[in-house]
Amino acid sequence: MTITITAFEHSPDGGKGLARDTRVRWALEETGQAYKVRLVTFPAMKQPAHLALHPFGQIPTYEEGNLALFETGAIVLHIAERHAGLLPHHANAKARAIAWMFAALNTVEPPILELSTVMLAERDKPWYEERLPLVQERVRDRLHLLSARLGDAEWLEGPFSAGDLMMVSVLLRSRSSGLLDEFPNLAAYVARGEARPAYKRAFAAQLAVNAPAASAG
Amino acid sequence: MTITITAFEHSPDGGKGLARDTRVRWALEETGQAYKVRLVTFPAMKQPAHLALHPFGQIPTYEEGNLALFETGAIVLHIAERHAGLLPHHANAKARAIAWMFAALNTVEPPILELSTVMLAERDKPWYEERLPLVQERVRDRLHLLSARLGDAEWLEGPFSAGDLMMVSVLLRSRSSGLLDEFPNLAAYVARGEARPAYKRAFAAQLAVNAPAASAG
Repeated sequence: MTITITAFEHSPDGGKGLARDTRVRWALEETGQAYKVRLVTFPAMKQPAHLALHPFGQIPTYEEGNLALFETGAIVLHIAERHAGLLPHHANAKARAIAWMFAALNTVEPPILELSTVMLAERDKPWYEERLPLVQERVRDRLHLLSARLGDAEWLEGPFSAGDLMMVSVLLRSRSSGLLDEFPNLAAYVARGEARPAYKRAFAAQLAVNAPAASAG
Repeated sequence: MTITITAFEHSPDGGKGLARDTRVRWALEETGQAYKVRLVTFPAMKQPAHLALHPFGQIPTYEEGNLALFETGAIVLHIAERHAGLLPHHANAKARAIAWMFAALNTVEPPILELSTVMLAERDKPWYEERLPLVQERVRDRLHLLSARLGDAEWLEGPFSAGDLMMVSVLLRSRSSGLLDEFPNLAAYVARGEARPAYKRAFAAQLAVNAPAASAG
């Protein structure tokens, strides 16, 4: 059955790979699944046709036969459950890899996303300079604990898993703030993720949509 | 095998059921699983013994035989995968119930949590009055779309699922802000969740820890 995902026609990041379709593309590449992409505009995302697929009017979505899914975490988990390459076979190890997926999305990403929002939407507000360090500190708190746990391991637990895929993707969003580089082992962990052939293919595919000239050059 | 979870010795909400152990207690009650609780203090949560269980020094954790899990979403999913009552049998319906779990945790909870943080930690800041409406609006955006999708259905999709358990739990955190009551169908949806016998048992169990007098009275 053909897999079709949705992605931004013009990603707000201009092709830096931070839009969430990159995470799904990466999971599909790691597991060797071919896929098609339907591009959607911002106005179209808030229209009934897309809202029927994604209740919150976002990307990505995932369609395969009779199944339609939304939420990046759910899509990546679905792919990882059905195809080898992203989850360990042993039940306990698998449950822990899934725990790291949730940790990435519910514990590490929220403060990083808040920081991005502040830097994007509140830069011209009178409180920006005073408030920014508070929000940065919330990100640092999480990165500090993650860095301590990772130590000098290659991946979070055993071989590369969907947990690493999600954690690397979330951490990528903190790089432009400079905070990621305060934790050299996390920066190196993210670089290891980016060096994976599957990530490179996923990144190139989204870049070809968002910056075709750069991609061709 | 005995299931042991961790919870706050003194929950910051004083027993309102908003701490995340309530979500896990609820899932265990829905599926009829007995469990023990180990209470932890704030200082102890940041010590090596607890950090070994939960890399981010939070509650709840979940221990069962050789398995140790962290992250509420992962714990609830683990319980729902292994015991009947929280996930549909059909693969596609199950994947969609899991999508609603991720939507609760990664799309609906982050702005609600940001609002709570602002109301708790920034109430005395000079920007509080001007900034609060911006953050409230981020919550409203999500609740508006969720309300539109729910319509007059009883649960998000078909019978009550782990997706509803998580969404109701997340929405409960927005009630004190007054925003939940702006969406009567969401307020009624949350009330249906709270009316479930399994929720009542979970709520009572956490209340007995945090406000033993109220609980006995």
